[in-house]
Amino acid sequence: MHMFETFTISPVGVVESTLQSLDDCPLQGHEGAPEAILRISPQYQQALKGLEKGRSVMILTWLHAANRSVLQCYPRKEVHAPVIGVFATRSPDRPNPIGYHQAVIVEVLEDGLKVHPLEALNGTPVVDIKPVI
Amino acid sequence: MHMFETFTISPVGVVESTLQSLDDCPLQGHEGAPEAILRISPQYQQALKGLEKGRSVMILTWLHAANRSVLQCYPRKEVHAPVIGVFATRSPDRPNPIGYHQAVIVEVLEDGLKVHPLEALNGTPVVDIKPVI
Repeated sequence: MHMFETFTISPVGVVESTLQSLDDCPLQGHEGAPEAILRISPQYQQALKGLEKGRSVMILTWLHAANRSVLQCYPRKEVHAPVIGVFATRSPDRPNPIGYHQAVIVEVLEDGLKVHPLEALNGTPVVDIKPVI
Repeated sequence: MHMFETFTISPVGVVESTLQSLDDCPLQGHEGAPEAILRISPQYQQALKGLEKGRSVMILTWLHAANRSVLQCYPRKEVHAPVIGVFATRSPDRPNPIGYHQAVIVEVLEDGLKVHPLEALNGTPVVDIKPVI
């Protein structure tokens, strides 16, 4: 059992976005999120090789503004519904606040990717990028 | 910039599977992976409330057998192709080895979920569960 061992995430880059506060954020990327830049740290840039404009990627982020102690919440904005577990929701508040985003590569930059759409705050740490199969 | 700050993952449970070694694993879940149990630790079980049989979920795991120093590799098993960056592949070897899996809930258990299919080794730590929207 690995229940009590912990692991360390080292962000590989950061989101640059016009979304500056939680009030600016749509609930999901397909609800009007803007494009954003994934600025990748120099030591990880060679991991981008082979990614091309037009490819769909999953982007995993660390939702640094989340409350990790929340285990149940109201579904979306429906405060009159019964509470449900956070594993049944996409709320950022959860034990390990990893954000999942799917976006298209708009441009490959020297030090990262421009993608669209991305519902992540400016300054959000980027944890991983994977191609959509 | 959050480039050099690190974050701690605390697994919420563990995979119980008949897949006992990397040799048993198909490359992707849709290539014949078995069902598996996500055994959730008592302190996180209330986060499962609202998940039901038949729902599709994303499961994030920590690929504990991965090599985190690998930044480029051969695509799939094609050792004669040029190397590409790990962000352009689904290789478990990557800076932050978070596994992404999509599966259907076969049964809701008292202390977890039975899901199908799951291409994760027995003993793999479970990091997060999110509903597919």
